Amino acid sequence: MIHAQMEKMFNARSIAVVGAKRPDETQGKGFKGIFCAVHDYGYKGRLYPINPKVDSIIGIKAYKNLLELPEPVDLVIVSVPAPYVPGVLRECAQSGNKNVHIFTAGFKETGEPESMKLQKEIEEIATTHGLCVIGPNCMGICVPEHRIGTWIEPVTKVGPVSFLSQSGGHAQDFSNYAGKLGVGFSKIVSFGNALTLDSTDFLEYLAEDPKTEIITMYLEGVKNGRKLFDLVKRTSRVKPVIILKGGLTESGAKAVLSHTGSLAGQEQYWNAFFKQTGAIRAYSLEEMAHTTLALLRAGKPKGRGVVVFGAGGGVMVGASDACSRVGLSLPPFSEPMQNALRSFIPPAGNMIKNPLDAFFLFLDEPAHLAKTMDLISESKDLHMLIISLHLDWVDSTMFSQIALRIKTVCVEHLGGKPFVVCWRQTRDDQEFHHLALGFERDLLDSGIPVYRSFETAALSLSKLAEYHLSSNFQSV
Amino acid sequence: MIHAQMEKMFNARSIAVVGAKRPDETQGKGFKGIFCAVHDYGYKGRLYPINPKVDSIIGIKAYKNLLELPEPVDLVIVSVPAPYVPGVLRECAQSGNKNVHIFTAGFKETGEPESMKLQKEIEEIATTHGLCVIGPNCMGICVPEHRIGTWIEPVTKVGPVSFLSQSGGHAQDFSNYAGKLGVGFSKIVSFGNALTLDSTDFLEYLAEDPKTEIITMYLEGVKNGRKLFDLVKRTSRVKPVIILKGGLTESGAKAVLSHTGSLAGQEQYWNAFFKQTGAIRAYSLEEMAHTTLALLRAGKPKGRGVVVFGAGGGVMVGASDACSRVGLSLPPFSEPMQNALRSFIPPAGNMIKNPLDAFFLFLDEPAHLAKTMDLISESKDLHMLIISLHLDWVDSTMFSQIALRIKTVCVEHLGGKPFVVCWRQTRDDQEFHHLALGFERDLLDSGIPVYRSFETAALSLSKLAEYHLSSNFQSV
Repeated sequence: MIHAQMEKMFNARSIAVVGAKRPDETQGKGFKGIFCAVHDYGYKGRLYPINPKVDSIIGIKAYKNLLELPEPVDLVIVSVPAPYVPGVLRECAQSGNKNVHIFTAGFKETGEPESMKLQKEIEEIATTHGLCVIGPNCMGICVPEHRIGTWIEPVTKVGPVSFLSQSGGHAQDFSNYAGKLGVGFSKIVSFGNALTLDSTDFLEYLAEDPKTEIITMYLEGVKNGRKLFDLVKRTSRVKPVIILKGGLTESGAKAVLSHTGSLAGQEQYWNAFFKQTGAIRAYSLEEMAHTTLALLRAGKPKGRGVVVFGAGGGVMVGASDACSRVGLSLPPFSEPMQNALRSFIPPAGNMIKNPLDAFFLFLDEPAHLAKTMDLISESKDLHMLIISLHLDWVDSTMFSQIALRIKTVCVEHLGGKPFVVCWRQTRDDQEFHHLALGFERDLLDSGIPVYRSFETAALSLSKLAEYHLSSNFQSV
Repeated sequence: MIHAQMEKMFNARSIAVVGAKRPDETQGKGFKGIFCAVHDYGYKGRLYPINPKVDSIIGIKAYKNLLELPEPVDLVIVSVPAPYVPGVLRECAQSGNKNVHIFTAGFKETGEPESMKLQKEIEEIATTHGLCVIGPNCMGICVPEHRIGTWIEPVTKVGPVSFLSQSGGHAQDFSNYAGKLGVGFSKIVSFGNALTLDSTDFLEYLAEDPKTEIITMYLEGVKNGRKLFDLVKRTSRVKPVIILKGGLTESGAKAVLSHTGSLAGQEQYWNAFFKQTGAIRAYSLEEMAHTTLALLRAGKPKGRGVVVFGAGGGVMVGASDACSRVGLSLPPFSEPMQNALRSFIPPAGNMIKNPLDAFFLFLDEPAHLAKTMDLISESKDLHMLIISLHLDWVDSTMFSQIALRIKTVCVEHLGGKPFVVCWRQTRDDQEFHHLALGFERDLLDSGIPVYRSFETAALSLSKLAEYHLSSNFQSV
């Protein structure tokens, strides 16, 4: 039943907004209100504003209440003050509107007795009448494909990543941040206090959703831990599940109570959870986005052996340390491979080892770069590649050529082995920095994972390997 | 003796460059050679190019060799191919030039028998004649105050931070990166293979140097571990010593051998080293710069209790977790403090707890912000403050007002308690991002530590507290 209702929500052909306002009636600076946000995103379905005091909003006929609507809609969005929410829910039940997103805050999360009572009241109405409620206290759903969303700046790039979030701010931030890395989204859900629909309900849907290939989650409290455990374990065999768990520490758990009124749970429990389910752990939104990027673009590694290919003595030392710290190994090159490399890499200024310090290969004869990639591709010990570029040491006129070599030679000669690029640039030169950002954009637009620090690149590949090599995944 | 020679080098009134080239004779793109680099930095002392084949370089009279110079100079910089270096060193000895920076690479670090022999040869000459050698295989010294330096882009901001680095690239990167955070430098030393002058020699000098208040170091190998241990322990009682140790892992140690030909040492040894000396540990150049910024600007905390003051439920949960993870505590506000805050912070949309979620205080009545700071200042449990700003949620026209409030109200009402600012901004809007960067610049220019992630802010304050509260430091 829930699955069918969600199918309706995520593909809603009709939406009503209760508490719709004219743009000039809202108080927020620059925010024209939920109704206009839904409209402005470019929603193509039938959109109904509900407001008893006006005839129309931005030229669209307004209705006094849900009972007056010409049809039950696929999704009702409620944006009225908290004390009016129970009345609206009764109206939903009466009018046959099953799917409700309660945007309004001011319930359990405040900890105030009056608000707790209000949450109890809406819970009873929802349960009695079998309403499917997203929220309260949340941003609801965002489906770029159908332009369904209530956000000020919803993502527009459609892709195979979905995000479940107990924080509306995180939903916006994560999709913005990952979006800039070239990640496209299928469904984003901010579910707030989880009155009837909890993370597990959405996860169940996304596990089956053919348009979702990677599931990302921000969790604070979980109602049914066992169900989540089983679901994540099952799902992660089929598609990666990356989870950022908020409130793992004592201080964090206190903050969770103030945020969504949930109990955050024990750290030990969650350590076991990650170990046993095969879920991928992230410690920040940024880390979750970086891992998503690697999973989405870098391919499947067959082991944890990595080649570091770049320039700079100190940088290469730091790179080696960073790899070791996250559980990646740097296998030495075999004798035949070293000899083959020596035939076209001169010893002066280069290091024919792993890390391989021979940056000139990106600038000179492309056949030599191709040969190097072939050798990595052929080696059974070398499973992944990190290309580490120090842009300060390159003339910016060479950026496009380097990008081209990576996009063509590296892609074509690695035989599908995962590789990522990382770069650093510290010169205080605005124009140079701007060109470096363009170089990054160029590679990201071509679908190559790019990171701004070696540590981030290594951590992302380590998580990629962790997922593909985990026993949970292998046991399928 | 060494101390006197270093005093000469760092305040060199005369420099000779052996192997000086005309700008058009160099091969490097955009790099006009070491001699021009020294000249272009704006060196005000007497500068002598040594080149037997030309009469002058960029209008400056050239000399055939060191014997022809009108005086022994305070620093000889050697930039000739490796096989010629022994000859130059003999000339130094013969002409009474004691202080030598060997820029040239191609010695021990290559691992090649011929180069090892060459290193042995120059070591013998240096030892026999008591030469003080920086390098070989390094960038040498950089003293912004006197415009002494061989780098393409040496820092110009003078300040109380000094950096000892076994990597020339790191010396350039760290000073660039920290420089952009507003950190100024006294002395930067890239000492490469450490023929005669090792990290301990420079550290001994910097420990006594009145112009150096914070010492930062990048170490690969150390010749005299016991001496380093004693020196760091002693020095860190007087001034902070932050160390990034390269080659702590097995892979890293191998890379060190290729880089500076040193033995990197055991991880366990270094764990004990940091614990017992009171040195502050950094895992990357960026982390070292962030810690330096906090030590330089944020004041001395009297404990590990931190107030987080910002906005956003999910962000505050993450902030609490991040603090706990690095060993900072978030003490709850006392009853009287909560009551006092309640008198001017309305409950709706705010959270009067720690984290304190009441961002409006930066925008409305400044007296309320001042009162909040006073309350933090008066509390004995609250030792530090992190202001967490989510700029996407603010109209950019308010940026300058927020910055002003932080620079005035927060600074004046915290009673010297350390505080830092962190911000996030994920909207994909170039102009908005540009304004956010300007906001960051504004605060940094006013000497306020600013970080781009909450994790970085928390880690930096944690290291600040670690230093000021360590038993080593307290035992003085």
